[in-house]
Amino acid sequence: MSKTPPGIRADYRRFLPITTRWTDNDVFGHVNNATYYSFFDTAITHFLVQHSILKWHGADHLLMVAESSCRYHSEIAFPDRITAGLRVARLGTSSIRHEIGVFRENAEMAAAEGYFVHVCVDAATRQPTPIPDRWRRILEAAMTDEITREG
Amino acid sequence: MSKTPPGIRADYRRFLPITTRWTDNDVFGHVNNATYYSFFDTAITHFLVQHSILKWHGADHLLMVAESSCRYHSEIAFPDRITAGLRVARLGTSSIRHEIGVFRENAEMAAAEGYFVHVCVDAATRQPTPIPDRWRRILEAAMTDEITREG
Amino acid sequence: MSKTPPGIRADYRRFLPITTRWTDNDVFGHVNNATYYSFFDTAITHFLVQHSILKWHGADHLLMVAESSCRYHSEIAFPDRITAGLRVARLGTSSIRHEIGVFRENAEMAAAEGYFVHVCVDAATRQPTPIPDRWRRILEAAMTDEITREG
Amino acid sequence: MSKTPPGIRADYRRFLPITTRWTDNDVFGHVNNATYYSFFDTAITHFLVQHSILKWHGADHLLMVAESSCRYHSEIAFPDRITAGLRVARLGTSSIRHEIGVFRENAEMAAAEGYFVHVCVDAATRQPTPIPDRWRRILEAAMTDEITREG
Repeated sequence: MSKTPPGIRADYRRFLPITTRWTDNDVFGHVNNATYYSFFDTAITHFLVQHSILKWHGADHLLMVAESSCRYHSEIAFPDRITAGLRVARLGTSSIRHEIGVFRENAEMAAAEGYFVHVCVDAATRQPTPIPDRWRRILEAAMTDEITREG
Repeated sequence: MSKTPPGIRADYRRFLPITTRWTDNDVFGHVNNATYYSFFDTAITHFLVQHSILKWHGADHLLMVAESSCRYHSEIAFPDRITAGLRVARLGTSSIRHEIGVFRENAEMAAAEGYFVHVCVDAATRQPTPIPDRWRRILEAAMTDEITREG
Repeated sequence: MSKTPPGIRADYRRFLPITTRWTDNDVFGHVNNATYYSFFDTAITHFLVQHSILKWHGADHLLMVAESSCRYHSEIAFPDRITAGLRVARLGTSSIRHEIGVFRENAEMAAAEGYFVHVCVDAATRQPTPIPDRWRRILEAAMTDEITREG
Repeated sequence: MSKTPPGIRADYRRFLPITTRWTDNDVFGHVNNATYYSFFDTAITHFLVQHSILKWHGADHLLMVAESSCRYHSEIAFPDRITAGLRVARLGTSSIRHEIGVFRENAEMAAAEGYFVHVCVDAATRQPTPIPDRWRRILEAAMTDEITREG
């Protein structure tokens, strides 16, 4: 539906397989638009959990979502299997832009693409604060490293 | 978290009360970012169902979501009650831009704001097609009419 | 669909209005069976949060769900408004049985009914432990008090 | 949390891998109780879609859920990978009892177990009707055949 041409798998650096669910399909028999954000969220938090950036409790710094967006190119429907492609597109002093592509089965072109902007905040004050050095090193590596298949 | 200043209730034309759910809260104890799109979706489809634009089956024309976006200003958490404000912001030949604000309890400023771009397609070919006249009259009225409290 | 005759509003003691969402409807155009448990969960946690039994963090005792069940009598579909009726049906040393009825719009008969069994556990050991006295007094009152409309 | 001892993988006949999502976790950092029903639903509809029993539109017969239930044995949390085990436990004139076990990563014992009772109804009248012969043959085969790994 979106006029922007879809990206391809080679545009992304990390890949996470996600299984669709019966409840993902809405009345029109395809995955509901809101559900794509849950795919985005899952791909990003999976990466952050793997690198101990996201912790359930007791963290000094938190990443809060400031903005998110999605362009829908073609339909997906349960029981399709999908893959979420992920890349860190921009790294500011206290912000991170993650970009995500959702690929249906073995398709080369993305069915949907979007982004999340994370802002790093102090867990106590909830005010923006520079991204900790350990996180920055992991995120910088994620911007440049070889494609890795996760999952 | 977003730097854009939040809108206020007077920026919107239709209002739908929505009750939050326990499962809306994620590990961080606030409504998960993806869930806001379900609020958006609910406000828009509620309006479209009320005016017989959206039908479950047998429609000649469908509205497909081409793009969606959200900026998050402040947190919401179950058991907060919220209100979704809705306005039709732009009406093209075959596209509609809906804008939505999510307001926590009695707050005047939006906790989150976003948009959905709908494209009108032929139900059979799934190709973009002009918005039917009956729909256009309803959508134009929605752009200009008085504020209506729904629900 | 269930053969057991549906209960009525007078069978329940507390009532919480819940708004349905577009994504609640599945391919068959009615609220998906799994979503009823989210209604149950919301009604129970709303009651527990109101009485400071459920806390996000730092509690000495937790309530874990040991069992849940639902019988479906008739269909509900977005944009229906529903009401969840709640009663504490049984109170053991360390367990609580909550029963819930889901009522469509102004219907007297339940569209669905079910239960949740909570077990009180020590937050540190996760082993069953007697329900704290303050909780027991609230739960006993909930078994006998007058009908209260919440929300 | 449930006192009934958990079943094991060998108790089930078909297996479907399911990936957990960030939004599955609730405030307590584990998969919310309601979400297990979405796993059940996904395992059952996957089987029914594969055998052309469940169709989106145009079916003469529908399967409606009359009852569902779950016992929770141990916690699951994103990013755990899980497998849903499925068996057809009972086949009546117009009803089917599906039983499901949810297994965490490589665990032999189920983290949760439950059932769904489906009633076959005439699509037009929504009244119970005998299960069509083609469906019955597939369901009988599912009760007796060898273990099959799906997905």
